[in-house]
Formats: sequence, C-alpha cells, structure tokens
Amino acid sequence: MRELTVDLGERSYPIYIGQGLLDQAASYFQKHNIGNKSPLLIIADSNVAPRYLAKLEQVLQAGGYKTASAVVPAGESSKSLAMLGDLVGKALDAGLDRKSAIVALGGGVVGDLAGFVAASYMRGIKFVQVPTTILAHDSSVGGKVAVNHPQAKNIIGAFHQPEFVLYDLNTLQTLPPRDVSSGLSEVVKHGLIWDASFVDWCEANAEKLLALDPDSLGYALYKGCSVKAAVVSEDEKEMGLRAILNLGHTIGHAIEAVAGYNEMQHGEAISIGMIGSAKLGLRYGAPEEVYTKTKRVLAKCGLPVSLPKHYDVDAIMAAMMHDKKFKEGTMVFVVPTAIGKVEIKSDVSVEWMKEIVEELKLEAEQI
Amino acid sequence: MRELTVDLGERSYPIYIGQGLLDQAASYFQKHNIGNKSPLLIIADSNVAPRYLAKLEQVLQAGGYKTASAVVPAGESSKSLAMLGDLVGKALDAGLDRKSAIVALGGGVVGDLAGFVAASYMRGIKFVQVPTTILAHDSSVGGKVAVNHPQAKNIIGAFHQPEFVLYDLNTLQTLPPRDVSSGLSEVVKHGLIWDASFVDWCEANAEKLLALDPDSLGYALYKGCSVKAAVVSEDEKEMGLRAILNLGHTIGHAIEAVAGYNEMQHGEAISIGMIGSAKLGLRYGAPEEVYTKTKRVLAKCGLPVSLPKHYDVDAIMAAMMHDKKFKEGTMVFVVPTAIGKVEIKSDVSVEWMKEIVEELKLEAEQI
Ligand SMILES: NC(=O)c1ccc[n+]([C@@H]2O[C@H](COP(=O)([O-])OP(=O)(O)OC[C@H]3O[C@@H](n4cnc5c(N)ncnc54)[C@H](O)[C@@H]3O)[C@@H](O)[C@H]2O)c1
Ligand SMILES: NC(=O)c1ccc[n+]([C@@H]2O[C@H](COP(=O)([O-])OP(=O)(O)OC[C@H]3O[C@@H](n4cnc5c(N)ncnc54)[C@H](O)[C@@H]3O)[C@@H](O)[C@H]2O)c1
Ligand SMILES: [Zn+2]
Ligand SMILES: [Zn+2]
Repeated sequence: MRELTVDLGERSYPIYIGQGLLDQAASYFQKHNIGNKSPLLIIADSNVAPRYLAKLEQVLQAGGYKTASAVVPAGESSKSLAMLGDLVGKALDAGLDRKSAIVALGGGVVGDLAGFVAASYMRGIKFVQVPTTILAHDSSVGGKVAVNHPQAKNIIGAFHQPEFVLYDLNTLQTLPPRDVSSGLSEVVKHGLIWDASFVDWCEANAEKLLALDPDSLGYALYKGCSVKAAVVSEDEKEMGLRAILNLGHTIGHAIEAVAGYNEMQHGEAISIGMIGSAKLGLRYGAPEEVYTKTKRVLAKCGLPVSLPKHYDVDAIMAAMMHDKKFKEGTMVFVVPTAIGKVEIKSDVSVEWMKEIVEELKLEAEQI
Repeated sequence: MRELTVDLGERSYPIYIGQGLLDQAASYFQKHNIGNKSPLLIIADSNVAPRYLAKLEQVLQAGGYKTASAVVPAGESSKSLAMLGDLVGKALDAGLDRKSAIVALGGGVVGDLAGFVAASYMRGIKFVQVPTTILAHDSSVGGKVAVNHPQAKNIIGAFHQPEFVLYDLNTLQTLPPRDVSSGLSEVVKHGLIWDASFVDWCEANAEKLLALDPDSLGYALYKGCSVKAAVVSEDEKEMGLRAILNLGHTIGHAIEAVAGYNEMQHGEAISIGMIGSAKLGLRYGAPEEVYTKTKRVLAKCGLPVSLPKHYDVDAIMAAMMHDKKFKEGTMVFVVPTAIGKVEIKSDVSVEWMKEIVEELKLEAEQI
C-alpha cells in the first residue's frame, strides 16, 4: 500500500493506493472521522455500479454506516445541472445532513459530478473519492469539481477537497483498454512537466502498465498523484504554477470540441496536444529529444500521436481561439523546454499554432 | 454615508450605505480593483430592472466598464438550477472570464441567485451586491448564496463573499409596503438577538421606517448589518454562534412551507416565529417583557403577530419536524432570555411547540 499527502494546509488530505482497499473501506471512513449517525450517499455510473457498488455498500454497512446510492448513466453527459438536481433530490430523500458525506465511486466523470454535489449540497458537506479509472488519479488531486454547460465544459463548479482518496488497484482490472491508455496520457503528462526519470520509467514499463500489472500501476499512480499534488500545493486556486498542468490541453480541448461524440477520449486528445506542444518546444529551441521522446513514450502507451486525417485544421483553430486559456487576448501556451520541464509562453503566434496543427495532421497522412 | 466592515480575515469586505450611491457606482468598482478589461454581468429581476438597471449600466459604462445584463422573473421561483444554467449561458455569451464580476442588483432573491452564479462560474469569480430591499441587508452579510430545489429551499449553494456591498437608500423608495415590513422583521430580529437599545430605537422609530425616511432607514440597515456582521465574523461557516440568526426561523419556515403561494412573506412568517420563540422564552423563565416588547415592536413595524386562523397546526408541526435545524433527532431552538439576548436550547419538547403554535393561532381568533 502506498500513501501520499496532498498538502493544502487545513485542507490537506491523503491518497491511499493499493490492492483490495475497497474491502477495508469502512476502517478508512472511521479513521477519517466520518460519523455513522448521518447517512452516506454513494454515486456511481452505470458501468461501475454493477461491478463495485454492492461491495462498497456492503463493506460500509458492515462497518456501521447507513448508505444510500445513486447510479447515473456512464459518460460525460451526466456532468450536468439536471443531474446535479436529481442527485440533490436523492440526497434529500436519503436524509443527508451536514455531517453526511458524498462518496464518488468511479472515474473522473463521477468524481467531478459527485464532488460538485458535495460542494453545493447544504453549501458543502464531506466528500470521499474512490477512483476506478487511471485518469481519475488526475481528478483526485486538487479539488476541482464541476459540471458542464451546453456551451462549455467544467464551467460550473467549485474547489472542494475530499477528506481522503481510496484507490483500489483491483478495480482497474476491468477498465476497457482505451480507457487504460487515455488515463496513462495524464500519467505521462505529469512526468513531462516535472520529472524526467519518471518519463524514462513510463517508457520502460509501458507494456506492464497496459497489461494492468498492479505493482507498476500502483507506482505510476503514486508518481502521477505526487507530481500533481506538488503543483497544486503551491497553487491551490489556480493562480499561476497550476497552469503547467494544462500541457497539451489547449490543443487537446480544441480537438475534443471538434471531434464527434465518443470519437476522441480526453487522454487521446491530450496526447496529440502534447505532441503539438513538443513541436512548439522545438521552435523555442528545445533539443530534438523533447519531441522524439514525448512521441515515443505516448505511442508506447497506445496513444495517438498525430491528428486523424478527417479533422479540419480551421475548425480546430477556431475552437482554440475560444479556449479559456487565452487570457485577455494574449495567447498562452505551456511549452516543454526539456523532458521533465515546461515553461509558460504568452507570445505564441496564431500562425505557428496553425502550422503545428497542420503538421500533426500531415504526419497522420504519411502513416 | 455610513460604512461598516464585515470582518472575515482575507475575505473581509465593506458595506456602504447612503443616498445616491448608484450614481457613484463606477468609482466604487474602481476603488475595489475591479478591472475594466473583462466584462461585468449585472443580474436584476423584472421589478427592479425597469427602475434601476439602465442607470447602473450607464454609470458603469461611463466609468469605462463593459456591461452585460440579464433580467430574471421577480420572485422566489427564479432561485433555481435552471435559472443558474441560463445565467451561465448569458455569462458565456457576454464573454465573462476569471477577472469578471457578477453584480446583483435587487433583493435577496437576486442576491442569492447571482451570488451562486458568481460562486460557481469558472469555479468562482468576483461578486458585487447592490441591494434594493430592506430584507437584503440580511443576505448582504455572510456570503451565503444558494438556489432552491423543488424539495428544499436554499439547499444548493456556497459561501461566497462579495467584494463590497453598495446600498443606495434611494432605491428603497419604490419598495411595496409589504416588502418594507417584511424587511424590518429581520432588522428587529438583529436587535432581539444582540442589542436591547436597538430594539428600543426600532420601536421609537417604526413610523419613520415605514415612511421610508432615509436617515432612519440608513441607521436601521447599518445596525442590522453590524449585528449580523459581528455574528458572522465569529462563525463564518455556520458552526455554532451563527445559529442565533435563526431566531424565529424554525417556526417561520414551517409557516412558509404550509402557506399558499405568495400568501406569507418571509419576514411576516419570521415575525410570527419570533412571537412563538418569545412564548418559548417565557416557559424557560424569561421576564414577561420579552414577550410583550417583542410583540409590540413587530406590530409597530406592520407585521403579523399571530397565526392566521386558516392555518393547520398539525401541518405546521409536520413541516417543523422536517426542518434542517433538527440536528440528529434533537430539537434545537433559539430562545430569547431577555431583550437583546438569546440562548440555544436543545431540549425543547414537541408538546411545548405544539401548544405554542396553538396559542399563536388562538390569538388570531381572539382578534
Ligand atoms: N477534476 C479534475 O481535476 C479533472 C482532471 C482530469 C479530468 N477530469 C474529468 O474527468 C473526466 C474523465 O475521467 P475518466 O476518463 O475517468 O472518465 P469516466 O469517469 O467517464 O470513465 C471512463 C469510462 O470508464 C468506465 N469505467 C470507470 N471505471 C471503470 C472500471 N473500473 N471498470 C470498467 N469500466 C469503468 C466509465 O463508466 C466510463 O465509461 C472528464 O469529465 C474530465 O473533465 C477532471
Ligand atoms: N443569503 C442570505 O443570507 C439570506 C438571508 C435572508 C434572506 N435570504 C433570501 O432572500 C430572499 C428574500 O429577499 P427579498 O425579500 O429581498 O426578496 P426579493 O428579492 O424577491 O424582493 C422582494 C420583492 O421586491 C421587489 N423589489 C426589490 N427591490 C425593489 C425596489 N427597490 N423597488 C420595488 N420593488 C422591488 C422584488 O422584485 C420582489 O418582488 C429569499 O430568497 C431568502 O431566502 C437570503
Ligand atoms: Zn486532462
Ligand atoms: Zn430570514
């Protein structure tokens, strides 16, 4: 079992990573002073609930907790205000009060949604995360919770830190392969922005990770969470440093915006975005290796490293110009200057970016 | 012009109370470092917008601000998740970014709604309150913002403090008489829980207040805000002391829950609730004056002091049992022990409460 602390002063919390932690859930709840007089509400999605919900409920009930549960449809579209309303109704029906906790059992979608329920129900109650995807290592650090608006992703939300995060590696065994790769994309990102030797490790262990080897997974998630925790601790409210976590995300979000429904996973789009950022790095004078190694490690993790041919460059550029990372007209990008090191450049020209998106597409055509 | 500070450490903010402050709005925005590069969104309701929105927009634009505005239907039903979604759409259309501010121009409904938009848009942007009702003196202190759920009032919200509050007494001149009295109910409440001499003052000046004399109003709002600020400063997140602000509210909320649409204003229900609490005080040994004076001052403010005959005592009791102030089965009430002094009693019997609600109704029958 690995443990790390997200250091946020009064709001600090631990992340536990290991095999079989679900079976010990009740003792973790007790350890973190979650009382058993007020009911808990567990929120899961329609893929995760049939696999792990009964187990979690049973373990918590055996530990003396009253539990209620709510199952939302799998997929990003559950991150909506309408679903927030439904879940608040469920919380009221179940009698949740100010001492209750909301438990997110699932990936980033359920984490973000359940987290916003916890942040806003009675103006904020306790929140526990039980992540079941690799990508959720990212959302389990930093307390960013949100739902989407038809016009913009994650635009309605809060900062709400969990009491603790319980990461049972066993639950990852049932993850579909595409979700495994997509999650690894953010793991690699945490290496690329902070820790060159971890990038080496990812490259050397990519096969084991894709095969869901628990020990490799445990280490990768531990390192990924640690990097994000280090960044977030220095910048809880996203004022400065935290921006480096957006490596690959400006291009990636634009690709997601243009992609058809379910065509591109978040981690896949981010992977292409990180390749684009590496190309930008070269233009700022980074050594060639920044690009080649970035590409190699992401490819080994089963991720796309070029833009599929049917994407329209102008549409992607238009989407990019709408991205919230464009502060007051200035174009800001996170740019790798070495493996494990990035800088924030605020003078990136639209022309360069367009050339880079074109290159990303050209490379797909060459394959 | 009167000024007071709500003292909350880093999140402290001032309340300005005076005549004609709307005309100087731009200079207050500048003084509080609200930049003019990012647009502002002013939210008002359908009664307030035709009276004061054009003026505020014009003043802010003359001061170099870009403004957009949104008008919501007057009334409690605008405090909904659906309206939150609409307003976030408006904010996106208007191009609001992290440096933008949301401006609430109106009463408590618009303050609570716009405040929750500000709390959740991009996970929190700046918020400015421009209250136009007397009751909003209450909601302008403490940062409680929220929308309603069909099953419960104010259940989805946040704590989000404004940058500053700009209270232009001139806007109060158009308030309907019932809203004047309703607002005075919370003013008197602030006296009853904290400051006996202010209760005397309210009694002596009730006529002037009802006539909307600006100087009396300015003083009443200043004192009301000051008491609430003192309480909130000691207990920002509602852990203990802040509970005294609920004087009259447990009974009051139950009356509101049972009342037909628009039949009972919040302040009116609270007035009856405070009479009930005073009756409870007598049972705990408070001097007779606690009851007689409470009744006299509220009546002078044009407020109901008994329960209209058509209310069903059992329905009110049932509603009360569902109130969120019942902590883990214990019945908790705020009970006056003297004028200007209350205590929290957690051993109030259901029987006593029922007798008191019956008395409140009986008195109406005797009139
Ligand atoms: N809050 C943050 O800081 C943050 C950071 C990154 C991403 N996110 C958010 O996270 C979301 C993406 O996260 P995600 O990729 O985990 O998405 P997800 O929660 O939709 O999970 C991906 C898919 O895997 C399924 N699934 C989950 N666990 C499973 C398991 N153990 N076995 C089988 N199937 C399982 C889900 O039902 C879903 O179909 C996005 O909404 C994104 O905005 C948030
Ligand atoms: N956040 C808090 O701490 C807090 C505290 C107390 C009350 N509240 C909330 O406040 C709300 C009640 O506040 P309210 O009584 O101000 O309600 P309100 O905002 O609905 O205003 C009352 C009525 O007066 C009208 N009005 C407002 N200003 C006017 C003006 N200057 N001239 C003419 N008409 C005007 C409004 O359109 C409305 O019809 C409730 O939703 C309650 O939950 C919140
Ligand atoms: Zn991401
Ligand atoms: Zn009130």
